[in-house]
Amino acid sequence: MAATAYVHGYSTREAVRLADQAKTLGGLLHHDTSYSPGARVLECGCGTGAQTVHLAANSPGARIVSVDVSPPSVEQAEARIRAAGCGNVAFQVADLFHLPFPDDSFDHVFVCFVLEHLSEPAEALRRLKHVLRPGGSITVIEGDNGSWYCHPQTQEASRAVQCLIEIQARLGGDSLIGRRVYPLLTEAGFRDVHVSPRMVYVDASRPELVEGFSKNTFIAMVEGVREQALSLGLVDAPTWDKGIADMYRATAPGGTFCYTFFKGVATK
Amino acid sequence: MAATAYVHGYSTREAVRLADQAKTLGGLLHHDTSYSPGARVLECGCGTGAQTVHLAANSPGARIVSVDVSPPSVEQAEARIRAAGCGNVAFQVADLFHLPFPDDSFDHVFVCFVLEHLSEPAEALRRLKHVLRPGGSITVIEGDNGSWYCHPQTQEASRAVQCLIEIQARLGGDSLIGRRVYPLLTEAGFRDVHVSPRMVYVDASRPELVEGFSKNTFIAMVEGVREQALSLGLVDAPTWDKGIADMYRATAPGGTFCYTFFKGVATK
Repeated sequence: MAATAYVHGYSTREAVRLADQAKTLGGLLHHDTSYSPGARVLECGCGTGAQTVHLAANSPGARIVSVDVSPPSVEQAEARIRAAGCGNVAFQVADLFHLPFPDDSFDHVFVCFVLEHLSEPAEALRRLKHVLRPGGSITVIEGDNGSWYCHPQTQEASRAVQCLIEIQARLGGDSLIGRRVYPLLTEAGFRDVHVSPRMVYVDASRPELVEGFSKNTFIAMVEGVREQALSLGLVDAPTWDKGIADMYRATAPGGTFCYTFFKGVATK
Repeated sequence: MAATAYVHGYSTREAVRLADQAKTLGGLLHHDTSYSPGARVLECGCGTGAQTVHLAANSPGARIVSVDVSPPSVEQAEARIRAAGCGNVAFQVADLFHLPFPDDSFDHVFVCFVLEHLSEPAEALRRLKHVLRPGGSITVIEGDNGSWYCHPQTQEASRAVQCLIEIQARLGGDSLIGRRVYPLLTEAGFRDVHVSPRMVYVDASRPELVEGFSKNTFIAMVEGVREQALSLGLVDAPTWDKGIADMYRATAPGGTFCYTFFKGVATK
């Protein structure tokens, strides 16, 4: 889980993008995750804490431990949680593959937008299973960049998104992992696996999603790999630029935009 | 709306496929459509009545008129509705573009899996608007074949689905129309347009969807255009056969299957 391989980078714009995403999608992704007072919860791969805020707010009595492999990210996450006034989260720098916790330490494990970056997601789930107590729950949330489509759709727009998918694959990840959450949890030996898709559908009647999701979350994420896509020769600049312009056109009145996240819950 | 251009054909297997689809998806697509006793409802493009059964069952007191351009289909629909014991549906052979009803004749209009086959879907909606009374509602349900994806996904499977999309386009239709329901209703002058996606997500924990949707609805629909795809030279036989085999593989344990329908409701 090398920090340098993180496809989205660590720029300020990326931090803003993640915050926009979490704010817009908080209800959709997290409304049905709430842990009991006193429950020991591990959030693994908290990044800059964009999801931690929701986790902490929805489970005010739980004792949450949030870890990430990147020290600057953990620092930002801690500052964000303090600013939000949540007192129930402890932070720690830790690698998912070398977790500094004894077996059966947690009642619940929560992983959001992490497995997509790993070359061995099933092994990651097995590691998380070790620190989860028998009968405890794991929650996994992932996007699926192959689930995206829009209207009007063009080949150039599809090509731009395909570049993001290819770059993440070259870094050892899989941005089509949403559709794999069920088989991954099953393969890792969890039981009672239940996966529910969370589709984001955007048209002109939903202006908050046009801004918060289509433009500031999804298109921003694609735009973030422009230089990599060009320098790797995956696409030429005119095709890329038309693709991005076409995606923006689909956010105008008359356009629509679709994307699906997958949330899996299972038991050890 | 030439009957001969209907992409799915009029075979017995197709009738069985449509019945499987309607049975499996009845709740997902129709649970929130119910009309008041006495309401005058037009179902336009009823085909063999696969959706009419749900419509009639959910609105037992409504006075439903179901029309289709194909006389044999109307005959089958009528037999099906009689067999189901519904007494609230009258059938009639009629062309959507030359409806034999005065303006403002209906309180509600219902169109399901019809616009995808038409070269002028917005004009079709305008014709339907004429026979709807001011303040009445229209409900439009369409699939979107570009919303399909699976795990494991292969290029050959994508190619097979792309053949279906291309064949429907050559016949003047658009099987990516689901994502266009909002702009089409808006363009036709309806107001208060609300579109909700209805995603079908299938994994091994949902065996009834593996059979009823993945195999007997979606893959069966793709398989139905094999001869057309080969004779048009859109694909070679080995690629096609591998694509279909790959789709079946995604219905086995460890595989997943995704598809989205779109339901739009609007007011005249």
